[in-house]
Amino acid sequence: MYTIGIDLGGTNIVASVVDDKYSIVATSKTPTAMPRTPEEIFDDIARVSAEAVEKAGLTMDDIDSIGLGTPGTVNADGVIEYANNLNFDHVPAKDMIVERLGDKPVFIENDANCAALGEAYAGCGNGAKDFVAITLGTGVGSGIIVDGKIVSGVNHAGGECGHMVIIYDGEDCTCGRKGCWEAYASATALIRQTQKAMEEYPESVMHELAAEEGKVSGRTAFDAMRRGDIAGIKVVDRYIKYISCGLINIVNALQPEIICIGGGICNEGETLLRPLRRYVEAERYSVYSKFQTKIVKAQLGNDAGIIGAAILGRV
Amino acid sequence: MYTIGIDLGGTNIVASVVDDKYSIVATSKTPTAMPRTPEEIFDDIARVSAEAVEKAGLTMDDIDSIGLGTPGTVNADGVIEYANNLNFDHVPAKDMIVERLGDKPVFIENDANCAALGEAYAGCGNGAKDFVAITLGTGVGSGIIVDGKIVSGVNHAGGECGHMVIIYDGEDCTCGRKGCWEAYASATALIRQTQKAMEEYPESVMHELAAEEGKVSGRTAFDAMRRGDIAGIKVVDRYIKYISCGLINIVNALQPEIICIGGGICNEGETLLRPLRRYVEAERYSVYSKFQTKIVKAQLGNDAGIIGAAILGRV
Repeated sequence: MYTIGIDLGGTNIVASVVDDKYSIVATSKTPTAMPRTPEEIFDDIARVSAEAVEKAGLTMDDIDSIGLGTPGTVNADGVIEYANNLNFDHVPAKDMIVERLGDKPVFIENDANCAALGEAYAGCGNGAKDFVAITLGTGVGSGIIVDGKIVSGVNHAGGECGHMVIIYDGEDCTCGRKGCWEAYASATALIRQTQKAMEEYPESVMHELAAEEGKVSGRTAFDAMRRGDIAGIKVVDRYIKYISCGLINIVNALQPEIICIGGGICNEGETLLRPLRRYVEAERYSVYSKFQTKIVKAQLGNDAGIIGAAILGRV
Repeated sequence: MYTIGIDLGGTNIVASVVDDKYSIVATSKTPTAMPRTPEEIFDDIARVSAEAVEKAGLTMDDIDSIGLGTPGTVNADGVIEYANNLNFDHVPAKDMIVERLGDKPVFIENDANCAALGEAYAGCGNGAKDFVAITLGTGVGSGIIVDGKIVSGVNHAGGECGHMVIIYDGEDCTCGRKGCWEAYASATALIRQTQKAMEEYPESVMHELAAEEGKVSGRTAFDAMRRGDIAGIKVVDRYIKYISCGLINIVNALQPEIICIGGGICNEGETLLRPLRRYVEAERYSVYSKFQTKIVKAQLGNDAGIIGAAILGRV
């Protein structure tokens, strides 16, 4: 069995052919090159999909279904109701793909949800049926899998755990709320927390590190911590506590088998994950349970979303 | 089809026979009368179950399955691993019921999860497949239904949305965390908030109301608000905002079709629900979606848990 998974991003359009072992067998991509019309973008989606099929040595007859992961909000009819960074307003994605690639089953889903599905089936989830994927990046992305299926809710907008308030009336979030987990646990938030600590600690080594790198990044505080810098240690510890706060909320609500953490910050590996697990263990509601949620690093990187999109029609 | 639903509470043991329309056809109950041994309690569970079957004019041969809702943590083997107010430590509930009532399918589940299932199928959910039940009582109880099934997670401890932190490092919660939703949105929390406001506002009518009732209750601030008392208005408005904060977190994560609110505070009806819906609408992530989570009052009261337990084997 072969299916096509497409990742429609603000920067690139990537299409892959995925086999029955959830492996990518061929890929083609092209820049999204915004601003463009939905018609132009879907012409390119069709083109890179056809290219990936050809690269795989297959024809469209070999393809059982097509899945598209997109930013923004999708509805049950396969319409992208709204996607800010693509300037989409009610774009009939499913129909536009069928028009261009023929009458096959087509599935449209939010990209973070696709990434969660991909990791659950083909990545660190190893087939786990109850699974949550968290991505610590510009924002805090998330996708929830229950009983092997994406929890997309009544309006396909489900899975936005990043927009769960952990500090009532706290920092402004891009979503309009105050105090969202995203405003404390994203890489963007870490950078902001690092900058604030640098103002408070003019003697911190973080100033040197940022000067060397040419900017304050998500690594600055972690690197400072490794050099024993007090301000760096404080920033990292508090940041990890913020991450753990949201993770414990998720554990208490869903008790998934696995939560995976992805995004650039995850390159810190066990430096991040070890204390994170300790904080979660200390506070989760299920202290007496034999089975507990495992917290692991995401494995598939950008491929997660493509594989997840490709298997939308299979699960 | 008939099944038995049992609600094992700290005060009473209630068993009902439930028919294929999810209606209770007969009930029998007895005091839990703690402290007693698990054996004594399960003898009574068997006795009231048999009584309910007899009252229904049936025999045990007419019963397809038995479900028990219990406080505490249950595991996949039907063992109640821990239930504080029953003093249970690894009680093999499923086996103890089979021993006493014969070899039928027996299902053990947390009581809040049973209540959610009952409301989803037989109460205000009206068959909704994606459903969350919240109970504002001594604590904040909750149960999550996804795709028609209880989300109990890897360890049957799922659904504890009350223990989601909404104020990082906030008020102490009974679970050991600080700042849980329960510590701000339970009836207990409302009473605490009312008492605090009474200290700040010695001229508030809440003092009179509390004196009349003989205590500060979950009604004191609502009654004061209805008399135009500024302190009462402030307490109620902030309390409803706290409730909305947790509800929006749940909406953003799960986008259920319906969230129902139960517990004593719900007797306030639209006085509570109208502003609550307004706050949720203003902040939910899915502003552009045509379909939105409905927020309604729970319908079944204490019957929800019994009906939910009774249908554990059917869904």
